[in-house]
Amino acid sequence: MGLFTKDIETLNDLFVHQLQDIYYAENQITKALPKMIDKATAPELKQGFEKHLRETEGQIARLERVFEMHGEKPKAVTCPAIDGIIKEANEVAGDIADKTVLDAALIASAQAVEHYEITRYGTLIAWARELGREDCASVLAETLAEERRTDEDLTQLAEGRINARAEAVQPA
Amino acid sequence: MGLFTKDIETLNDLFVHQLQDIYYAENQITKALPKMIDKATAPELKQGFEKHLRETEGQIARLERVFEMHGEKPKAVTCPAIDGIIKEANEVAGDIADKTVLDAALIASAQAVEHYEITRYGTLIAWARELGREDCASVLAETLAEERRTDEDLTQLAEGRINARAEAVQPA
Repeated sequence: MGLFTKDIETLNDLFVHQLQDIYYAENQITKALPKMIDKATAPELKQGFEKHLRETEGQIARLERVFEMHGEKPKAVTCPAIDGIIKEANEVAGDIADKTVLDAALIASAQAVEHYEITRYGTLIAWARELGREDCASVLAETLAEERRTDEDLTQLAEGRINARAEAVQPA
Repeated sequence: MGLFTKDIETLNDLFVHQLQDIYYAENQITKALPKMIDKATAPELKQGFEKHLRETEGQIARLERVFEMHGEKPKAVTCPAIDGIIKEANEVAGDIADKTVLDAALIASAQAVEHYEITRYGTLIAWARELGREDCASVLAETLAEERRTDEDLTQLAEGRINARAEAVQPA
């Protein structure tokens, strides 16, 4: 979360900090996805990443709405978790020679990103409800549903022909 | 993954690297959990973390079995993702004054760790099956089931009285 933890005294403080954490994360994801789109070779994977980039932009707008509903200005705090996940993704996307193996690795990286978002939005929704902010929870739940769908789509891609093709590549 | 990506040519190479990545991650988690046990105040949360520490040790043994089944020596590669997730967890666990708010933050951190493990084991199982290693997939699936149960247990703790108590804390 990159928290200034001394500022956190209540569940509300924690909720706002977590919003700032995921706001940073979503912004980093919009920077990482274009590179993943470039690297991906399977057209359906490229399209999947392009769709997720558009969705992520919508999710950022939704977060800005939640900040506003909650009387806060949108603000980002550095999130070492997403930085680490994206660093791994970039390392993998670096220079695997075989493109179908690279696609399999890209899907795995994207799913790690999705699961980070799923856990953080799940937490935010629970805290919003505890704080009596069903209105914020409801907006955040729209994003959580999108993230879950994206993760399922990636699983289908992974279990489908991309892995099967990658398996067909023989060691040099 | 901290990959030497030039060594990755096939799906099998990617599978082995991912095993090494999660092997590193599980070992880092066994180092992080004792600190979280110390910080946690709710007895059921403390017990939950203690149980997960014992499970994690079993999961490391299971990974060593999978390495062996697959003809590989157990080896760890640095995993920036888990390092980032644990760094965030430590920052949060730093010095939130109110213990019930801290418990809520600790649960969120633990769920971020769980979701990282869930996505990586999910990927490993899919790749093991694609490679015709149903035996490895079956061992890995035992761990995935444990991780999912832990995540559900944490959700129950979070949605139960810990958040309710944290909410009761008034701003200074």
